Amino acid sequence: VPNFSEGRDLKVVAALEAAIAGVAGAIVLHRTSDADHNRSVITFAGSGDAVVEAAVQAAAVASGLIDLTQQRGVHPRLGALDVLPFVPLEGATLEDCIALARRAGERIWQELGIPVYYYQAAALRPDRVRLEDVRRGQFEGLREAALIDESKAPDLGGPRLHPTAGAVIIGARKILIAYNINLRSTNLAVAKEIARAIRASNGGLPAVKALGLPLESRALVQVSMNLTDFEQTPIHVVFGEVERLAAERGIAIEESEIIGLLPRKALEMAFAHWLKLPVFEAANVIETRLEQAMELKSVS
Amino acid sequence: VPNFSEGRDLKVVAALEAAIAGVAGAIVLHRTSDADHNRSVITFAGSGDAVVEAAVQAAAVASGLIDLTQQRGVHPRLGALDVLPFVPLEGATLEDCIALARRAGERIWQELGIPVYYYQAAALRPDRVRLEDVRRGQFEGLREAALIDESKAPDLGGPRLHPTAGAVIIGARKILIAYNINLRSTNLAVAKEIARAIRASNGGLPAVKALGLPLESRALVQVSMNLTDFEQTPIHVVFGEVERLAAERGIAIEESEIIGLLPRKALEMAFAHWLKLPVFEAANVIETRLEQAMELKSVS
Repeated sequence: VPNFSEGRDLKVVAALEAAIAGVAGAIVLHRTSDADHNRSVITFAGSGDAVVEAAVQAAAVASGLIDLTQQRGVHPRLGALDVLPFVPLEGATLEDCIALARRAGERIWQELGIPVYYYQAAALRPDRVRLEDVRRGQFEGLREAALIDESKAPDLGGPRLHPTAGAVIIGARKILIAYNINLRSTNLAVAKEIARAIRASNGGLPAVKALGLPLESRALVQVSMNLTDFEQTPIHVVFGEVERLAAERGIAIEESEIIGLLPRKALEMAFAHWLKLPVFEAANVIETRLEQAMELKSVS
Repeated sequence: VPNFSEGRDLKVVAALEAAIAGVAGAIVLHRTSDADHNRSVITFAGSGDAVVEAAVQAAAVASGLIDLTQQRGVHPRLGALDVLPFVPLEGATLEDCIALARRAGERIWQELGIPVYYYQAAALRPDRVRLEDVRRGQFEGLREAALIDESKAPDLGGPRLHPTAGAVIIGARKILIAYNINLRSTNLAVAKEIARAIRASNGGLPAVKALGLPLESRALVQVSMNLTDFEQTPIHVVFGEVERLAAERGIAIEESEIIGLLPRKALEMAFAHWLKLPVFEAANVIETRLEQAMELKSVS
């Protein structure tokens, strides 16, 4: 899921997407650009070899077309290709993604001369797990700091950053579900109270980040969440807990929404939970059985 | 989903499966044999051309290896290949399946000389919609009756049935979900009462067949159901209604179980319902998006 520091010049974004889509076996799933942030995210998938190759190609194009000495936007950034998390889909593990992050980092440094910081599950140092900690100071601050403070130097390459492309922050993380629940109420204090009660950092539900927000145009309030490990705290558990906390306050859930994509396993877990199915497996689904059978046939 | 009149000699069943699996593009998903019934069901999927070809091949092998003048079992049967329903999977309609049923029927009669009755959505006459009505009298009765009573004659070929392979009953129907809910109670009357309340034939939920059964070894009772149109009455609606009727009687649901396979859309409908997602689409699922993107790429 590469994040690029360009969200205004859509010709540049198209060139980045073309670099990815041009790699055999790399499939672009989603693309979004924001002009205020001056940033684009292109979600793509494929085999390990394909995603590493596509990431290196995209880093090369970004390095050629994005000049951080000129780039401005409200979103902090350290590199032309700013952040590059690898995320396991069905059949892959977080460990696989850490290995891919390392391979991509080595090639980006060796072939393109762009230094690399590793973060999240791929971090080499505990103070580099959080993206915010790695990127603090951004391009302008870190290109100075890295030269004089070893603790700020890249994990690979450096200490001098690339003069226009900065550095790439490469990581591995589980898939994240962006999930909002809208409450039939205009009482913002209640949404904030529920968000506080469920967020992991306050001792609530593990792997849940939550904020209370107003939805003024709709006369509703929202509990806006990121589920950073849906297998640890499934989406149906989050819904149930927010429903319970809202009901205690006499408030009903109006609706909920998933922003972007979610893994199929989240549906399967919710289905098994709600129907009280003790032995439900993905292979009970006709289409899954069919896909598995077709893979076996094409392998054999 | 062909049903064959052989469930004891597994060499015959293996030959039937091999005939299907040998057709390019036909994928065997599931196979089950019952010795008491002396019957086997082989579920397979593929493009329209592939499933028609595989059905004709399987009918030929069944005709060569199964002799109804010798075959005995507790399950009624009219043909060596007894029943052949075509069922639409994602991307196909019931109308597509009616057309496939007709093509398969014409080939089975023309190429193999086995007469054909059409049933369910492929029926040509209202009194042949229900399988039970078509098969009444079985092989022994119908081979006589068809000769003297025009209303009993096959829709295609005949009136003389094939001397050893009988006739094939070919149809089209929506996918069926076999679904059981176990109640935390030993009161069989309650399970029967709930089954009566929900079954379509009593004015309950459309497209639901239901029976109340004892599960003596587990000291539970069961509402055992067939959902014949899960888009009309979704599985989550059935669960909710049984839960409500049981709760009125002070009884909780212990668990539920899906027998065999169910379509992915049933999961997606339940997920959107329970999370109150007004705009959930299958393409919100990463794997679905990926499959769609891969199909586009392989087509282009």
